[in-house]
Amino acid sequence: MRYELYYWPSIQGRGEFVRLALEEAGADYVDIARRPGKRGVPAMMKILEDKRMARPPYAPPFLKAGPLVIAQTANILMYLGQRLNLAPRDEAGKIWAHQLQLTVTDLVVHIHDTHHPVSGWLYFERVLQNNGGTHMVGRRISYVDLSMFEIVEGLRYAFPKRMKRFEKKVPGLVALRDRVAKRPRLAAYLASKRRIPFSQWGIYRYFKELDA
Amino acid sequence: MRYELYYWPSIQGRGEFVRLALEEAGADYVDIARRPGKRGVPAMMKILEDKRMARPPYAPPFLKAGPLVIAQTANILMYLGQRLNLAPRDEAGKIWAHQLQLTVTDLVVHIHDTHHPVSGWLYFERVLQNNGGTHMVGRRISYVDLSMFEIVEGLRYAFPKRMKRFEKKVPGLVALRDRVAKRPRLAAYLASKRRIPFSQWGIYRYFKELDA
Repeated sequence: MRYELYYWPSIQGRGEFVRLALEEAGADYVDIARRPGKRGVPAMMKILEDKRMARPPYAPPFLKAGPLVIAQTANILMYLGQRLNLAPRDEAGKIWAHQLQLTVTDLVVHIHDTHHPVSGWLYFERVLQNNGGTHMVGRRISYVDLSMFEIVEGLRYAFPKRMKRFEKKVPGLVALRDRVAKRPRLAAYLASKRRIPFSQWGIYRYFKELDA
Repeated sequence: MRYELYYWPSIQGRGEFVRLALEEAGADYVDIARRPGKRGVPAMMKILEDKRMARPPYAPPFLKAGPLVIAQTANILMYLGQRLNLAPRDEAGKIWAHQLQLTVTDLVVHIHDTHHPVSGWLYFERVLQNNGGTHMVGRRISYVDLSMFEIVEGLRYAFPKRMKRFEKKVPGLVALRDRVAKRPRLAAYLASKRRIPFSQWGIYRYFKELDA
């Protein structure tokens, strides 16, 4: 199936968590809003502004998968996780992976609300270590690992000084980030123009006063 | 199965969305942290502070369902929705109900972040009307309807003046709130001591300056 991803074209933002999963799996997908002209952002706005749609997304990102239009980052990843083999298949494992992803969402929301934007990540270090230190969930790669990569990258961009110190406290997550970055498909993706650079307009903005 | 709900005992908060589902279904459950003495909050803290737990919750609410410990409100509701017959059974309907619940979560987070805390709810009014005006999802009651009840109640508590004006714009949601409040099990629950009153410590705090 050719998936259609709908997300703002100029930031990584929440869409990037989905993009990483599609790229890692080598899935066939179109990044709709990044297409030029009317086929780009206007095509996305047309769906967002369709008042008669029975199951409208509230906001990007959303994914078209055949007849389904799925919104909410963690919901999209739960759906794709099964199809792209990026999540445990048993019910308990599936629920647990989704739970971690929702906790990622919570902490991303709070990154700029708090004076200690990184401390919540100690929780993920502990989960990783208790699972053997190699993967967040189960015995192989999942979308949660990919999201951890994105979080470390984003925090490095937003809080370069703080992260330098903080990374000593989360050695497992840093090593996981390095392993994810070296996966062949992801390495190719990260080096491509498909990867949007971090910027002051995304989730992870650099504020000098926050990077004490 | 006897479910165990773990949530802070003195506020409705996020735990209330789960409680409404358990109450509506007449499920057998224990509200652990509301038990007196050591069997209450300390029993919850013991789990939250257990550093060796393989799949630890990051924060309350969480639900014990046999061997499973499930956290994240929307994740708990997705799980319970199937077991308590409070969600569509087909995959597309299940994904859609969960998507709406995650959007509820987003908007609850933003209630105090914005000067227009209620405008996002116009989206839910539209979804309701496009689905026939009686239920948020499918043709019968779901946990999303129960959450809509809670949201209207909370906004009435936090923004009494604004809501009085705003309710004219969301007549469907207000009518849905009334129907939910009259369901026999929920009416009994709402009149009982199991229902914690709204307070200045919960999600919906009244701030005079916000209630313009």
